[in-house]
Amino acid sequence: MLDQTHSDAIWHRINQKTKPLGALGQLEMLAHQIALIQSQYSCDAVTEIEINQPTAIVFAGDHGIADEGVSIAPSAVTQQMVLNFLAGGAAINCFCRTNQVALKVVDAGILLPVDHSSEDFIVQRLGSRTHNFAQQAAMTVATAERGIALGKALVKRVIESGSNIVMFGEMGIGNTSSAAAILSALSGKEASDCVGRGTGISDQQWSKKVELVTKAVSRCEDLSVVEVLAEVGGFEIVQMVGGFLAARESNTPVIVDGFIVSAAAYAACLIEPTCRDVMIFAHQSHEVGHQALLSELNAQPLLDLSLRLGEGTGAVLAMPLIRAAAEFYNHMASFEEAGVVVD
Amino acid sequence: MLDQTHSDAIWHRINQKTKPLGALGQLEMLAHQIALIQSQYSCDAVTEIEINQPTAIVFAGDHGIADEGVSIAPSAVTQQMVLNFLAGGAAINCFCRTNQVALKVVDAGILLPVDHSSEDFIVQRLGSRTHNFAQQAAMTVATAERGIALGKALVKRVIESGSNIVMFGEMGIGNTSSAAAILSALSGKEASDCVGRGTGISDQQWSKKVELVTKAVSRCEDLSVVEVLAEVGGFEIVQMVGGFLAARESNTPVIVDGFIVSAAAYAACLIEPTCRDVMIFAHQSHEVGHQALLSELNAQPLLDLSLRLGEGTGAVLAMPLIRAAAEFYNHMASFEEAGVVVD
Repeated sequence: MLDQTHSDAIWHRINQKTKPLGALGQLEMLAHQIALIQSQYSCDAVTEIEINQPTAIVFAGDHGIADEGVSIAPSAVTQQMVLNFLAGGAAINCFCRTNQVALKVVDAGILLPVDHSSEDFIVQRLGSRTHNFAQQAAMTVATAERGIALGKALVKRVIESGSNIVMFGEMGIGNTSSAAAILSALSGKEASDCVGRGTGISDQQWSKKVELVTKAVSRCEDLSVVEVLAEVGGFEIVQMVGGFLAARESNTPVIVDGFIVSAAAYAACLIEPTCRDVMIFAHQSHEVGHQALLSELNAQPLLDLSLRLGEGTGAVLAMPLIRAAAEFYNHMASFEEAGVVVD
Repeated sequence: MLDQTHSDAIWHRINQKTKPLGALGQLEMLAHQIALIQSQYSCDAVTEIEINQPTAIVFAGDHGIADEGVSIAPSAVTQQMVLNFLAGGAAINCFCRTNQVALKVVDAGILLPVDHSSEDFIVQRLGSRTHNFAQQAAMTVATAERGIALGKALVKRVIESGSNIVMFGEMGIGNTSSAAAILSALSGKEASDCVGRGTGISDQQWSKKVELVTKAVSRCEDLSVVEVLAEVGGFEIVQMVGGFLAARESNTPVIVDGFIVSAAAYAACLIEPTCRDVMIFAHQSHEVGHQALLSELNAQPLLDLSLRLGEGTGAVLAMPLIRAAAEFYNHMASFEEAGVVVD
């Protein structure tokens, strides 16, 4: 848990601003959370929230489960979308541009590798795609552990290079199945309460997806979190789990995107509960399992725009709210400074 | 109503982007709305949404009803907050800074005028504050009409000087009472469904506020919209009504803040229903009457952050979503451009 030494002082600062108590709603909680995180290494209460080099990291990975016909697109689309990210043409690129967020793309194990070299493209492939978890474990426990270590090391490097706020996003055809299975296995919820429509499947595909997830989850009883991740997870998901652990160790706020990233966040919190302290939940996805995950994580997301795209789009769209929270915390006048006398 | 000639072409452009159909949720509707507005003067479908000089206009006015003790602060606070706006210390200033939005402040009739001169401070006072509408009409019909004309002329000037998107906000101790009365009088809803807690009043104050609003609204039967505004409105409110009419005439999108601005928006739509076409609703205020107003206006706001501050803060916080919508509409790759083949 975060050191609460400066918590009251931070609330006091917020409450002295020229506004009725609590009138900035969730932005006040956001300012408090970030100030508290940034106060961890400070002797004094934080009087200035710093936002340096906000960076979105999109983890891409492919899933054997895509062979089962539970997605609207084939695995090849993951690579095509990674190329789209690298060319600057995807939604995440647009939102990074308008919100002044740097973007890094990670090949965590997509079916077809891409031939591209840049410092913002990180290749740390755990394979060419996971095994089909309807048939067998998606990966070995050793691979899951290696993925966690790689994700952790990468996020540590990003933070050490000067980013003090990060956002995680993902791309991977089939990964809503994996996220639903992780949720079901780790929470004990029925698969039908965890499985959604992904990016738009039919009723028949949905029923099949529920059946596959149910079957795979039945193999997960009594497994540890990492074993569950190996059984039904994904390469991008295990790397994000490592990323959350790194953010916690570095006391760095991390903005959580939608359903898949939240599944990784949930797993990370089960491994290390204090991870929750540095997480900011960006948006309510339209994916049905996301609400369940947010409840498990006791999270109230900032946005609800009916997004169901992934890529980190929701996380990056929340960035201006972080900047707004920091600015009011840093520079909004107090009643005394402004000469405002309420009674 | 807006000319729908290019509507299908705009949807086609959105649907060709590299994302599942509808996956950007409300941002897609936003992009469509703005592109359609901007297509009104175009022979071709709009291929580029332009965002020029976004400007927030905060209308301030005082209310005689404040004498009844239904507010948490005295009328003098309106002036103090206007000075805070002019000094750059208020929440609205912070959010304008982080979101690159220009700010103009209008004295529409605050109790105590301020001695300040700048091109971003517009003095068009309709009086020093309205009459106490619990006792008599807040202003004459002639004054309400003059206010509408002044607000209209101001917003036209802002648009003619190069802003192609505007945001309205307000400041005025007592103005939630006025907004509640306008809503009740124009919609026929019971006062108790329209009156909220303002910036934080007690149960007793709330009951009194309901009683005062009920009594004043009983004088509004069979009145025209402008007559209702004269009876229970405010100087800042009538000027905003004029502002909405100007935005419609100029085909300029206008971002609507919370409860009070929405009450003005509602009145404007009853005067000229096509005003609705240019309105973008920024956020769901915590004020109880706001939900009723949004239903009347068939509006789904972009944000729900439990804000209850006013000043235009919600509207300005929505501006990054507008920029994101424009950017994806303008520059996100199509499936063809990106070589993404879904099936």
